[in-house]
Amino acid sequence: MSPRPSRQTLANAIRVLSMDAVQQANSGHPGAPMGMADIAEVLWNDFLSHNPANPHWVNRDRFVLSNGHGSMLLYSLLHLSGYDLDIEDIRNFRQLHSKTPGHPEYGYAPGVETTTGPLGQGISNAVGMALAEKVLAAQFNQPNFKVVDHYTYTFMGDGCLMEGISHEACSYAGTLGLGKLIAFWDDNGISIDGDVEGWFTDDTPARFEAYGWQVVRDVDGHNANDIKQAIEQAQKETNKPTLICCKTVIGSGAPNKEGTHHVHGAPLGAEEIAATRKALGWTAPAFEIPAEVKNAWDANDKGEQAEAQWEELLEAYVAEYPDLADELLRRLSGELSADWAEKSEAFVQAAQQAGETIASRKASLNTLNGYGPLLPELLGGSADLTGSNLTKWSGCTDVDGTNANGNYLHYGVREFGMSAIQNGIALHGGFIPYGATFLTFSDYARNAVRMAALMKLRNIFVFTHDSIGLGEDGPTHQSVEHVSSLRLIPNLDVWRPCDAVESAVAWKYAVENESTPSALIFTRQNVQHQPRTADQVAAISKGGYILKDCEGEPQVILMATGSEVELATTAADVLAAEGVKVRVLSMPCTDLFDRQDMAYKESILPASVTARVAIEAGSTSLWYKYVGLQGAVIGLDRFGESAPAKELFEYFGITAEKLVEAAKNLI
Amino acid sequence: MSPRPSRQTLANAIRVLSMDAVQQANSGHPGAPMGMADIAEVLWNDFLSHNPANPHWVNRDRFVLSNGHGSMLLYSLLHLSGYDLDIEDIRNFRQLHSKTPGHPEYGYAPGVETTTGPLGQGISNAVGMALAEKVLAAQFNQPNFKVVDHYTYTFMGDGCLMEGISHEACSYAGTLGLGKLIAFWDDNGISIDGDVEGWFTDDTPARFEAYGWQVVRDVDGHNANDIKQAIEQAQKETNKPTLICCKTVIGSGAPNKEGTHHVHGAPLGAEEIAATRKALGWTAPAFEIPAEVKNAWDANDKGEQAEAQWEELLEAYVAEYPDLADELLRRLSGELSADWAEKSEAFVQAAQQAGETIASRKASLNTLNGYGPLLPELLGGSADLTGSNLTKWSGCTDVDGTNANGNYLHYGVREFGMSAIQNGIALHGGFIPYGATFLTFSDYARNAVRMAALMKLRNIFVFTHDSIGLGEDGPTHQSVEHVSSLRLIPNLDVWRPCDAVESAVAWKYAVENESTPSALIFTRQNVQHQPRTADQVAAISKGGYILKDCEGEPQVILMATGSEVELATTAADVLAAEGVKVRVLSMPCTDLFDRQDMAYKESILPASVTARVAIEAGSTSLWYKYVGLQGAVIGLDRFGESAPAKELFEYFGITAEKLVEAAKNLI
Repeated sequence: MSPRPSRQTLANAIRVLSMDAVQQANSGHPGAPMGMADIAEVLWNDFLSHNPANPHWVNRDRFVLSNGHGSMLLYSLLHLSGYDLDIEDIRNFRQLHSKTPGHPEYGYAPGVETTTGPLGQGISNAVGMALAEKVLAAQFNQPNFKVVDHYTYTFMGDGCLMEGISHEACSYAGTLGLGKLIAFWDDNGISIDGDVEGWFTDDTPARFEAYGWQVVRDVDGHNANDIKQAIEQAQKETNKPTLICCKTVIGSGAPNKEGTHHVHGAPLGAEEIAATRKALGWTAPAFEIPAEVKNAWDANDKGEQAEAQWEELLEAYVAEYPDLADELLRRLSGELSADWAEKSEAFVQAAQQAGETIASRKASLNTLNGYGPLLPELLGGSADLTGSNLTKWSGCTDVDGTNANGNYLHYGVREFGMSAIQNGIALHGGFIPYGATFLTFSDYARNAVRMAALMKLRNIFVFTHDSIGLGEDGPTHQSVEHVSSLRLIPNLDVWRPCDAVESAVAWKYAVENESTPSALIFTRQNVQHQPRTADQVAAISKGGYILKDCEGEPQVILMATGSEVELATTAADVLAAEGVKVRVLSMPCTDLFDRQDMAYKESILPASVTARVAIEAGSTSLWYKYVGLQGAVIGLDRFGESAPAKELFEYFGITAEKLVEAAKNLI
Repeated sequence: MSPRPSRQTLANAIRVLSMDAVQQANSGHPGAPMGMADIAEVLWNDFLSHNPANPHWVNRDRFVLSNGHGSMLLYSLLHLSGYDLDIEDIRNFRQLHSKTPGHPEYGYAPGVETTTGPLGQGISNAVGMALAEKVLAAQFNQPNFKVVDHYTYTFMGDGCLMEGISHEACSYAGTLGLGKLIAFWDDNGISIDGDVEGWFTDDTPARFEAYGWQVVRDVDGHNANDIKQAIEQAQKETNKPTLICCKTVIGSGAPNKEGTHHVHGAPLGAEEIAATRKALGWTAPAFEIPAEVKNAWDANDKGEQAEAQWEELLEAYVAEYPDLADELLRRLSGELSADWAEKSEAFVQAAQQAGETIASRKASLNTLNGYGPLLPELLGGSADLTGSNLTKWSGCTDVDGTNANGNYLHYGVREFGMSAIQNGIALHGGFIPYGATFLTFSDYARNAVRMAALMKLRNIFVFTHDSIGLGEDGPTHQSVEHVSSLRLIPNLDVWRPCDAVESAVAWKYAVENESTPSALIFTRQNVQHQPRTADQVAAISKGGYILKDCEGEPQVILMATGSEVELATTAADVLAAEGVKVRVLSMPCTDLFDRQDMAYKESILPASVTARVAIEAGSTSLWYKYVGLQGAVIGLDRFGESAPAKELFEYFGITAEKLVEAAKNLI
């Protein structure tokens, strides 16, 4: 039996795979994988607890490559350690339908824990994962039964550290004392524009100490012993997250290009690849890993043992705490509780009965009070607007630096960080996260909302104060384009309910929707209750439905969402009194309505009726999709003003009178 | 003559005005104005160089209230110091058409330097102002002639410091060594959710030292001497920005509510207001400021002198450096150079002649090389994608920590910070800022783009790599919804040019557009040159125009933007060859097209032609506004994939063939 290859050789396997795959694709980023190869080798071979045969083992350590452009580092690790990612997959790097897209995409290759690439979000996802682990452990672990007990590791580069979201997430991680979060800073001094000295001169270790992190300074990122000691030190500190600062040479191993920005985001070229092979003493051809190297990397045996050991612990836990174990397994499976369907439905029906005229944000709180007891998996919060967003229901207990056994997070004024942390919580499993801010500040969080949609996560974004209806705070706080612009994000369901009943249905749908995140948009101001038949209540979950109708074919169809639905029903009453045959559609979720079949759409919005008016206190453009060029849209295509809400609706002409006028013009 | 009122009394005038105005409006934030009254009193009465009679005096100190919800602090200061903001304006706080909206809005009250409210952006604007001052000074000052020489002061609360953008902007300010930026942290320990201990435990002074700032710690924010000394210390340090950490009591003066979050964002109530009056010994009724207090605050004489002194300096400068002085005054006026119109037009014509088939990002660079020499006011940059965005033209010199006499900024990976800093540069005057990132990461910057639009700034956002056309980097980097979602922002012109000529026109329009920011969207990949007559070249600046036409009324109209225009012209050729009468519209800026008169719109898009097909490699929804329900749209309503660009266009069916097919289906 040949001796185990040296650590250097094992790390070089990453270097060679990475440079060859990038060369083959003729695009990609060899610099980070080659520079971080030694760190990855030590972490994966000596510390990472995972089982390549079961990437879904719930107690695995999480590994997040926050500098996602270095995807070949992760693909190399997954391939070498024995995940179902073969050399053909590596060869197809960045090709259509391959498991190895340009950036790690969640759901493509096994073992990819999250989609990364948009800088700063990976570390924020990692904070969410470590947070989820800590809270889940607090909720379920018992003396001698640490059934939830794993680390979250993340790699990040200078880019992640320059991004503002790294401040938000890391500051919050420090406050929460996430002791099992271990981050590696790839301090190579290079970003795309060149030497970072010109634009990034932070004392990063001091910055992280200011956040309350443990910082391990001056680690030689190419020295295995240094790296190993640093990780051991990180694991010892259980009350603080740790930043390990690794000095590395970008593209390490490429004799002529290492240490320069030329190696960051472009293939090395055939010549430099040959020179690198020579310098590393690597004789195997491209995409051939010597068997002894592959064997030394293989983590299947170790992984199987680790999981088996945990399974043993779990079995004992099941025996000792059967109810708790049942609940833990349910939570981890993502299944809702057995009585959810019936009780949530009953809540919706009761809301229809109650007929309350309240702000939809208040309806949202009432819904949380109704559903909350059925949903111990809820892990909610607000970006310092708890009393305005009304997201803290009666069963909430704070999670903070001293208590992890809770279900509510005061995220601070950190909208983007909150949303990306929520993504991490959703990815970890065991929770349904929700987080809130004012709708206008969805702008701050926008790319994390997009990432939730891209990753198909069950993640619920609550956005309140949804229009000029917020009044005096003025145009900086008044949403105009936001509802429409969120609707444009693929695979995101945007709900703008018109009353307490639609609010309850929106929450229900969002909770049940396992592969699509939801944005729930609520008003600051009161909205009128709408009468409905049982069929109409059921139809809410089609996203658009007939709320008020006439005999026979309508002469005009009015459609609205949210706070403008009551304007539409008022206008319809006026028109009906004048003998006009009018139908009103409530369209709480146009995304969902768009997914209905043609027959349903035609049944409520028949092609033969071209007199159509939409009303929404926001951008008009998107509504032409429903009203056509012969229709009309009442809305707002300019910024708002600071004044009491009622005056603003008048001033901007978003009124029942204008709607009546517009309808008459069309018939 | 009565003695000058005490500092305490002067500060109390702010407290009383603020609490009374909030009470009158029945909404608003008394906490910050009352808590920061003493700091503001010292800064404004002892240090701030400004002239209330001329809020546009170019060498005034800039004051930015980053915690904009404390707007009554600023309104009080403006009123008391003698700006054209009378007591009726204060009384109308938060009312429609008043000068005193809920948050300070640029352009409403004189002396409001920027719109604030969205947290963290004010401090970032301030960084931009200080940066503009430094660069302008480096470009124009001469020995003994410091014609550009002022401070930028900013107040911020915990909220600003939690926001990620504060990290981006302050880190960069440290790198650049902005010695005349002086920031005050209102360390009152309270945010909306309550005591910040639960969610914000940063060692903020250490954090800012890590950014390379001077930090003045432990200042009693209610002690005038302490505050004065701190500002003096800040002014002495000329190579670093300074953070002055002020311990304050939120709502200071309100005996029963101060120091709690109850005073943050709600009126004090009549009872507490009476108690506060009593505690402060303030006997004057609401909205009446005793004459001696008003007189002591009045800054008109001092301001007039300050400006007169500067005018003297300027006159001497004019005499000594007439050309430089002319240029400085032109720059500050915002007027373009005398030869701009002619030479930029000639460049456009030459581009049409040259007929290059290149990537539009390359066309953008060529345009910058063409226009740059005419525009010394350009102050450009990129968020660490210089070589990809192609924003560094041949006449660029870096501005960095050692050199301020330049015109290019390596902003680092800080999209949001960059964009808000650009807003500050535009607000300062003397420059036309531009900044770049990948289109998808416009998400990160989005609310700063919105703020530019709200403030009507000439600010140019360059977004490259605009679709699946970027290829292998995959869905995290491929824009789908971004072009459309930017179009939804009011008062933002979104250009997506189809070739080098439209790229040149887009830049020209953006440079000339003084009250509307522009988003210039460019491709990574090559785009075909389009032949045009002189009239067609001229029509580009209508935002939409006929690029290719048929004899008589068309049977079908194709419309497209950017890289899909060549697909439309190709499809038109195919259709024409088959005898179909087809028209092609290029729509590089739909916002601008929407502003054309009905006659023009009808002339290119006649109501009689209902067979219309739009093609754009992104969201389809917005296009129904132009094609109607009888038309068709070819685009992408799902996320992209990682693969070479050409394959992706095929895979997603964004091709000339599909366009031909769709057109045939309609006729």
